[in-house]
Amino acid sequence: MNKYLMDLRKGKVKYLMIEEHIKNLIDKNKIKDGEKLPAIRELARILKVNNITIVNAYKELQSKGYAVLKMGSGTYAKKRDINRNLNREYSRALKRIFSNEIGDYIDFTGETSSGEFFQIDLFKNVLNEVLDRDGSRALIYQEPLGYEGLRKSISDVFWKDSVNPEDILIVSGAQQGIDVVSKAILNTDDSVIVEKPTYSGALSVFKSRRSEIIEIPVEKNGVNVDKLEKILQKNNIKCFYTMSYFQNPSGISYDDDKKKQILRLAEIYNFYIIEDDYLSELIYDSNIKYNSFKSLDHNDRVIYIKSFSKIFLPGIRIGYLIPPEKFRENIQNSKINTDIATSSLMQRALDLYIRKGMWKDYINMLNIKYKDMYIYMGKCIVKYLNDKVDFTKPGGGLHFYLKIKDSIEIDSISLFKEAKRRGVLITPGSLYYKNPSEGKKYFKIGFSHVSKENIKRGIQILNSLMTI
Amino acid sequence: MNKYLMDLRKGKVKYLMIEEHIKNLIDKNKIKDGEKLPAIRELARILKVNNITIVNAYKELQSKGYAVLKMGSGTYAKKRDINRNLNREYSRALKRIFSNEIGDYIDFTGETSSGEFFQIDLFKNVLNEVLDRDGSRALIYQEPLGYEGLRKSISDVFWKDSVNPEDILIVSGAQQGIDVVSKAILNTDDSVIVEKPTYSGALSVFKSRRSEIIEIPVEKNGVNVDKLEKILQKNNIKCFYTMSYFQNPSGISYDDDKKKQILRLAEIYNFYIIEDDYLSELIYDSNIKYNSFKSLDHNDRVIYIKSFSKIFLPGIRIGYLIPPEKFRENIQNSKINTDIATSSLMQRALDLYIRKGMWKDYINMLNIKYKDMYIYMGKCIVKYLNDKVDFTKPGGGLHFYLKIKDSIEIDSISLFKEAKRRGVLITPGSLYYKNPSEGKKYFKIGFSHVSKENIKRGIQILNSLMTI
Repeated sequence: MNKYLMDLRKGKVKYLMIEEHIKNLIDKNKIKDGEKLPAIRELARILKVNNITIVNAYKELQSKGYAVLKMGSGTYAKKRDINRNLNREYSRALKRIFSNEIGDYIDFTGETSSGEFFQIDLFKNVLNEVLDRDGSRALIYQEPLGYEGLRKSISDVFWKDSVNPEDILIVSGAQQGIDVVSKAILNTDDSVIVEKPTYSGALSVFKSRRSEIIEIPVEKNGVNVDKLEKILQKNNIKCFYTMSYFQNPSGISYDDDKKKQILRLAEIYNFYIIEDDYLSELIYDSNIKYNSFKSLDHNDRVIYIKSFSKIFLPGIRIGYLIPPEKFRENIQNSKINTDIATSSLMQRALDLYIRKGMWKDYINMLNIKYKDMYIYMGKCIVKYLNDKVDFTKPGGGLHFYLKIKDSIEIDSISLFKEAKRRGVLITPGSLYYKNPSEGKKYFKIGFSHVSKENIKRGIQILNSLMTI
Repeated sequence: MNKYLMDLRKGKVKYLMIEEHIKNLIDKNKIKDGEKLPAIRELARILKVNNITIVNAYKELQSKGYAVLKMGSGTYAKKRDINRNLNREYSRALKRIFSNEIGDYIDFTGETSSGEFFQIDLFKNVLNEVLDRDGSRALIYQEPLGYEGLRKSISDVFWKDSVNPEDILIVSGAQQGIDVVSKAILNTDDSVIVEKPTYSGALSVFKSRRSEIIEIPVEKNGVNVDKLEKILQKNNIKCFYTMSYFQNPSGISYDDDKKKQILRLAEIYNFYIIEDDYLSELIYDSNIKYNSFKSLDHNDRVIYIKSFSKIFLPGIRIGYLIPPEKFRENIQNSKINTDIATSSLMQRALDLYIRKGMWKDYINMLNIKYKDMYIYMGKCIVKYLNDKVDFTKPGGGLHFYLKIKDSIEIDSISLFKEAKRRGVLITPGSLYYKNPSEGKKYFKIGFSHVSKENIKRGIQILNSLMTI
């Protein structure tokens, strides 16, 4: 008898074959995304196998991301993440490029300040002062909440003492903040609302928690509140992930009115706002005022996340979290389970740097430098891409999000590939959507890692690629 | 009508009441741990509510850890983790104590080297050399795999070039290593084998991934291989988490024979070995030879995790992972999703420290110092606790694991509380077991944060507490 037919007799192989078969049907769209799979008993009867064989096949499908189990309802087919290949290609390309250092590329993918304006000598002095002051304790002493001095500085300088240092948790940047919060508060099948488009690193974390992700399109000044409320009426939402200023990638900022409306909804519909305060230090448009969700929150509805890495120094890997009281202990424990504590010397150095006023000076300087770059890139876009793209000026931050006009045939993935070949790196919009095809007419260009000369040259190259 | 009965009409409240009722029954042991809950339709019919109300009640139970869903089978009651309260009390006590710095306590809870022998001036010079050499790049440049120089040093110094630097992933300590690996390879309901007892931080991560955790008792030189194989025959195991040398807490080390047998089983039963190489640098007994699972592995079955924090400097938060090829990309991406990258200046400093031979000198010195402490603590245990506890000398590492003799009435949780009152901190064994009551006759004492004088005094106090 045929080997494969022989194998069928062994239960172990049988379930894998069934799983393989269903997987193929899903891949080939014979079974649609979201379609209910047959009940276990029914399929077992049809295929003349034990129930357990089907259970195992479905489990395998689930573990490979081809099916989801909904309690009291059944198992549903799930189209594999088509983003995966693109994500992979994009990150591989960047990894390869960065591992040879950036070389001759014009790099529009930067999402952080570049550090070219950073006075390393000042920081070196600060580091030495810490080591002289604290000795080896600076490298040994671990506080799960983070270095107390730094928590006090943050409370004092950034929150004018309105937040208790005990309620601040130091983390290794915003990405870790999102991860730690997700592990603490999200269970499998919990629903999370995100902005559409949104930061791909957050999407990855929520997917990894196996949360249901619901996207709401961003408009000029935040998500549409009516749409948000409709979703809240129909779904049991655990949290809403938002970047309140210069959202990555769309560049939009929330106005106060919208923030207050959303905070009200959070109270009514009992959900929490994960506020990723991305680049609010860099406001160039004087009409934009800084009021975080957190600062407007009277009901302890905000999980505030702030990264120091993006604005300050990417390699320093420090940020902080302010959790609502309800989740405080869970989130603290989640941080401990993630990596015990964040590197202590760097926390001490950052603390002293803030206390000495160097932080403020540095941010002021970045505002002057980057505003200049921002204006310049805006002008270049208008000058060279005016008939190719639509965009809104963010008024702050480090990037522009551009929509390729409908009349232009190229999509952003092809543009990414072509541009790479010509020595220009852009970020295709597809990375920022649950369904990547929705982002195919968008791309992001940042100015923090590029000289003015190269901003112009890079945009000219993009122009030529979109003209062809 | 009674307010609560009125509330029942509103669906939203109804499911919470049902959930509350079932929770109480589980807490009071009226519904046993593992008992199957009624089918959704059946319970809905009995209670005369909609199916969706029961679905929501069961979901709520699940999310609070009071129930688990097994596909194709139903929902099962789950006794809340009774470890939780103890864990919480223990970690709160330690947090409180540590936040006032350790003060007058005799601290036997240390799991890392203390840093008192660390020459901070040498390290300060290294840091300054890095900053002079690399400038602000040392704080800006982020490599997702970790600083290339450090990966090369690790390959060169610790693996004599048998591991490719590209296959090494820098992480922020072993705890992050376990977390990153779990997120990359463990799906809900995957089964993990752990040693009994085992490191509580690993238990927490596996629980948080909602994995099924199967414990195998450790014996003199590792887990019982027959028992392991029996479990492998009956279960589909994804991985086995092990600490190969001076296991935390039992102190045992695997012999080569056992390591080879387990590697063979990994190949036959298709599972992976997560090797947490804890404190293998500190071998005092010359009969113990260092051969990691990783070094004996010919089939790419080992996920090797090494922390530099424990032996070197806790606050430095650096470690590394060597994943098998199969999981390499997933694990790398999981690290990126966790926190992008590990603090770069510290990596550069550690690299230079290793290259200059300072690492080797430091470890040699620690071996001399800690061997002396180890011998001293061993003698004190024999002298003062001989009729109170049984133990095996680990032959290395930083702690002893003691079993309170059956004739002694006190359990380790009471001993922990009493000792704390007398100024002595120990770690109760209960933290290291899935079912904490199994650890109630064990406790751990470490010698790395205590002077000889205090080792003696602390053990004398423990003796007096066990005598009463």
